[in-house]
Amino acid sequence: MSILRCAARASLLTGRLPIRNGFYTTNAHARNAYTPQEIVGGISDAELLLPELLKKAGYTNKIIGKWHLGHREHFHPLRHGFDQWFGAPNCHFGPYNNMVKPNIPVYNNSEMVGRYYEEFDINLKTGESNLTQIYLQEALQFIRDQALKKLEPFFLYWAIDATHAPVYASKSFLKTSQRGLYGDAVREIDDSIGKILAELRTQGIAENTFVFFTSDNGAALISAPTQGGSNGPFLCGKQTTFEGGMREPGIAWWPGHIAPKQVGLQGNTCKQVGQGGQGKRRCPGCEIECLLTHSFCTHRPVFYYRGNEMMAVRVGLYKAHYWTWSNSWEEFKQGIDFCPGQSVPNVTTHDQQDHSSQPLLFHLGRDPGEKVPIREWHREYSEIMNLIHPIVQQHKSSLVPGEPQLNVCDWGVMNWAPPGCAKLGKCLKGPGSNPWKCDWPH
Amino acid sequence: MSILRCAARASLLTGRLPIRNGFYTTNAHARNAYTPQEIVGGISDAELLLPELLKKAGYTNKIIGKWHLGHREHFHPLRHGFDQWFGAPNCHFGPYNNMVKPNIPVYNNSEMVGRYYEEFDINLKTGESNLTQIYLQEALQFIRDQALKKLEPFFLYWAIDATHAPVYASKSFLKTSQRGLYGDAVREIDDSIGKILAELRTQGIAENTFVFFTSDNGAALISAPTQGGSNGPFLCGKQTTFEGGMREPGIAWWPGHIAPKQVGLQGNTCKQVGQGGQGKRRCPGCEIECLLTHSFCTHRPVFYYRGNEMMAVRVGLYKAHYWTWSNSWEEFKQGIDFCPGQSVPNVTTHDQQDHSSQPLLFHLGRDPGEKVPIREWHREYSEIMNLIHPIVQQHKSSLVPGEPQLNVCDWGVMNWAPPGCAKLGKCLKGPGSNPWKCDWPH
Repeated sequence: MSILRCAARASLLTGRLPIRNGFYTTNAHARNAYTPQEIVGGISDAELLLPELLKKAGYTNKIIGKWHLGHREHFHPLRHGFDQWFGAPNCHFGPYNNMVKPNIPVYNNSEMVGRYYEEFDINLKTGESNLTQIYLQEALQFIRDQALKKLEPFFLYWAIDATHAPVYASKSFLKTSQRGLYGDAVREIDDSIGKILAELRTQGIAENTFVFFTSDNGAALISAPTQGGSNGPFLCGKQTTFEGGMREPGIAWWPGHIAPKQVGLQGNTCKQVGQGGQGKRRCPGCEIECLLTHSFCTHRPVFYYRGNEMMAVRVGLYKAHYWTWSNSWEEFKQGIDFCPGQSVPNVTTHDQQDHSSQPLLFHLGRDPGEKVPIREWHREYSEIMNLIHPIVQQHKSSLVPGEPQLNVCDWGVMNWAPPGCAKLGKCLKGPGSNPWKCDWPH
Repeated sequence: MSILRCAARASLLTGRLPIRNGFYTTNAHARNAYTPQEIVGGISDAELLLPELLKKAGYTNKIIGKWHLGHREHFHPLRHGFDQWFGAPNCHFGPYNNMVKPNIPVYNNSEMVGRYYEEFDINLKTGESNLTQIYLQEALQFIRDQALKKLEPFFLYWAIDATHAPVYASKSFLKTSQRGLYGDAVREIDDSIGKILAELRTQGIAENTFVFFTSDNGAALISAPTQGGSNGPFLCGKQTTFEGGMREPGIAWWPGHIAPKQVGLQGNTCKQVGQGGQGKRRCPGCEIECLLTHSFCTHRPVFYYRGNEMMAVRVGLYKAHYWTWSNSWEEFKQGIDFCPGQSVPNVTTHDQQDHSSQPLLFHLGRDPGEKVPIREWHREYSEIMNLIHPIVQQHKSSLVPGEPQLNVCDWGVMNWAPPGCAKLGKCLKGPGSNPWKCDWPH
């Protein structure tokens, strides 16, 4: 589990913490890092991704949408277990002028078919773009194609990004919500998922298809409300290790296997969601099935990292903060606020504060907003910390960090001449290599 | 609509704003006031209460639990339309020593049957009290009695208060929730409501009984988390005119008449809940049926008062703050915080700020937490304020304030010798009358 999209995506596909799979930085202490197009690193060949495991079991794997695990060729999805790809390697930021920075390419499998803001437009003034519809049609077509091959299983990773700033929606969804452009984008995604589920039913494979829907980090409150979501009662947002930055709802759908409308909170998901599952199968090492079918993982600890630092740990409904930081005073004074309207003394700190000798302890059941630390002199504090400390010690002593992938940047590695550019006449000439230590301010 | 329990209760039963029905104070500007036992005022004889209307239609009316509309004899529920009463006139604060302050009496109809912390115990150490069970049995018995009288309609106002500090629960519910004593109290109320609904079905009158469940103000964050609830994404809590202080969920249940699982937000409740209702009946003047069956009230404005001041107004999903105030710097510096962990510049102010020449405008759809005011120079601002200003002008020019009931306090009027005390040997001797202007600090 980690804060930023690419790290969360890396974790989703590897089943491993960013500190293990390399999606972090050591350039400075406890920094968020991600994969802009000047990043040199990406997903390591040493990592085993879910599609690679599924491939061995005979699956056909497709990713539609944002990859974000490295845009350089050897990091591409087709090199890491996917058979097909339609989408982009980086965020849809732009437009760029193609002189100092190229626009992000859109790939169809191993070759680019255009660039954002060129062949794949996003109108930043009106917020209009039909990208989600394109991604939807790709998904429906893939499902239809696969359904024809009755005996061949498939894995579709549908990684849309319409709700990431700059937020966009198709014309027919613009101004249809009471929540501005962000709401319009959510409505289009919701509608699209309805169409995907309907297609699974139409093809008669719904009872043989497990669907899981989730997001990769809490709402980016710096973009809210017009370009971002809300974290409800939770503290702060994306970029932080408070619940508003890390906790995500997840919806599992599998007609005939998972009973509808079961609700489970993080930490006791297993027991409750699992009741409708296939309780008798064993699945050592298989995180998702474990969550859905076993109860022993109820108190499996969750480690909250920011860069190379374990900021917090959750055990059951308790969460202990070993470090606190929202962002620096410098950023905050410039108006960058990851906790707008929220300020909990000693918790949402603008200095990196080391609490590791006496962590801040919260009970997320009675205090979901992380606003009232349990007093250190209460018996509950010592009882719970006596339980948590050895879990943290065991974690730290057994941890083997991966080679950090997000340390080096270089304008030379940007998407100047992606594979396929020559056919389209869209190759650009970049500068020579001039690597530097990426600057991650928060 | 108003902030404090008694004012909200007065509004619920009269269908009128506190500024109209007298449940407010003019002792200082924009102050919350309520009905402690030293209050001299209460519900005016000039007000027409829901049970009085129902009585004319042949209903038998019972209140179980907290009255809070005046503890002096002429204010009692049996003088204002109720046929039966089991409960207390004031909050269950205490224990008092009966020398300087008497414990709050519990009434069975027109006579007291004991006092809190004496015959009706609340253990402040363990949080144990069986009061909710007593109130539940009273409710079940009343329903059974009424069900026998087939043709006679009834109205039950079940006003439990276990979730008000000091929070309490029965022994079998203590330590059963993951939310501390507050969660235990919620569970007991939830369980009790289940038993009440089951009794309606058992008696065969469920399809002829309209049930409405709501609360009277947002969670008291000064008591949270151990003695109070959470307001989710909403700003601040009880005592304020932000959404966390004022917005309440409401659940309507009427098998065969209101379709289950319909959801409506405040402001568009009507249209959505109404679809399952009896859309053809007309109900001029009948607020609740209007809400449930008509759509024209979608944009009926909601006025947010604090004492004698209109602090804010809501029209559709827009809310304009004409005044802002959480509480005074003096209180805040003593640690009294109605917005713990929250601080929105220019909004959660510790001075009373007059924005009436340029109200702070929020869109509660895209910004439910009232964190990002719409800029005054945006076209949306002027368009909406041009709509809202005449609504406010019309409201203010037509408003006839009631005689303020919460201005005068007097130790002499406390519950020294309630009716029935002599039989029980529980009459106390109070001091003579010495009225003063009540001090309402926030």
